[in-house]
Amino acid sequence: MRLEPLPGLPEVRPGDDLAALLAASGARLDPPLGPADVLVIAHKVVSKAEGRVRALADIEPSPRAIELAAEHGKDARHVQAILDESAELVRADRGRLICRTHHGFVCANAGVDQSNTGGEGVVVLLPSDPDASARALRSALGVGAVVISDSWGRPWRQGQVEVAIGCAGLRALVDHRGWPDRDGRPMAASVIAVADEAAAAADLVRKKTSGEPAVRLQGLANVLIEEEGQGAAELIRPPEDDLFR
Amino acid sequence: MRLEPLPGLPEVRPGDDLAALLAASGARLDPPLGPADVLVIAHKVVSKAEGRVRALADIEPSPRAIELAAEHGKDARHVQAILDESAELVRADRGRLICRTHHGFVCANAGVDQSNTGGEGVVVLLPSDPDASARALRSALGVGAVVISDSWGRPWRQGQVEVAIGCAGLRALVDHRGWPDRDGRPMAASVIAVADEAAAAADLVRKKTSGEPAVRLQGLANVLIEEEGQGAAELIRPPEDDLFR
Repeated sequence: MRLEPLPGLPEVRPGDDLAALLAASGARLDPPLGPADVLVIAHKVVSKAEGRVRALADIEPSPRAIELAAEHGKDARHVQAILDESAELVRADRGRLICRTHHGFVCANAGVDQSNTGGEGVVVLLPSDPDASARALRSALGVGAVVISDSWGRPWRQGQVEVAIGCAGLRALVDHRGWPDRDGRPMAASVIAVADEAAAAADLVRKKTSGEPAVRLQGLANVLIEEEGQGAAELIRPPEDDLFR
Repeated sequence: MRLEPLPGLPEVRPGDDLAALLAASGARLDPPLGPADVLVIAHKVVSKAEGRVRALADIEPSPRAIELAAEHGKDARHVQAILDESAELVRADRGRLICRTHHGFVCANAGVDQSNTGGEGVVVLLPSDPDASARALRSALGVGAVVISDSWGRPWRQGQVEVAIGCAGLRALVDHRGWPDRDGRPMAASVIAVADEAAAAADLVRKKTSGEPAVRLQGLANVLIEEEGQGAAELIRPPEDDLFR
């Protein structure tokens, strides 16, 4: 497997044709970006191109947002944006808001981000439907698969890792259960979140501060599928199956 | 970045010289395994070489193990092995035992595994000190860094991803906080768990069932350090900082 960032992408702004920008950059790779490739894209450029940004100045915080903001040392307008993206506040503790988004993702601040937003007083939201975004980019670019990623913290572990919030053209989960192990016994619990591992791998070659939101992965033909697939929605554990609520 | 599995490793058994087996395999790579490389190794071969295996037949389950086993549909001797590796049972629910190990890791079954164990009625434990194992292998192999990994489930997400349980020679966490973002503002929450991302990346090129426990990563010079580093212990979130207990 080989990974390399797409070169020379400009700052992306609302309304930009992200597929065209990625195609122009991908054509400069050697060999050019193509149907055997997995393209991992940090969601922020997708969100920006789709206009999923909000100016804090335009946000009127509710009493609940004002109360949470005071309690957790946050900007009340940022908290309001977080609440607007949330179906449920899973934990509010020690300055951190862990939310279940309308998509079903459980993550800090419902994915509403204040860094690298492209402007002062602007927050970037997650795409409304990241799997649809991935399908559209895959189709426009003619690549094997697209993964849209975000950086998330985890319970019990320090540091963030990149995870898949949208994907198309690959199996998000590869199920090895029931396959014989090396000793010939069926393997018990081996469903691998391949889309998350691809997102994490891409992050290793990306420079956080220098505008390298897209990474090409070559050599992952074994996880590609012809159809669009079930997307990253498949990665969401049903709440009733969850031990940590 | 380029990733490839180490070829032709035999089944590892207790007492085997794992470093010698890895060195012989690594010498067959082109270029041979060397000081610029990160080597990610699935813990199971490390555990086996270190004799961290137990025969179920030798385990006398306690009343608590018998009770938990009955409640969760497990083998009482397996449950006893899990309890022996645990400092705390964090959750026991719906057939799953989520434990805090003596190392401080929170994971299912305290990492005690029944697949690919090398024999019927045998369970494989995590290494006693995976950071020490990583340091010893790094020194014996003369590679830039060693990461020892395991497959873990996550709350809220389906599927397992490979994470780092031991490492040496690289920064497990890379801290971007305070660095200017693209707009010149300091980034808020960007501590990246690089060792976990390296473990996840390696998993993408490994065939679960065919004995490819070790993967060489080239092109990660930016995360290598000359010293051994603080290891994967740095990835453990202090319990008092944890929102999900």
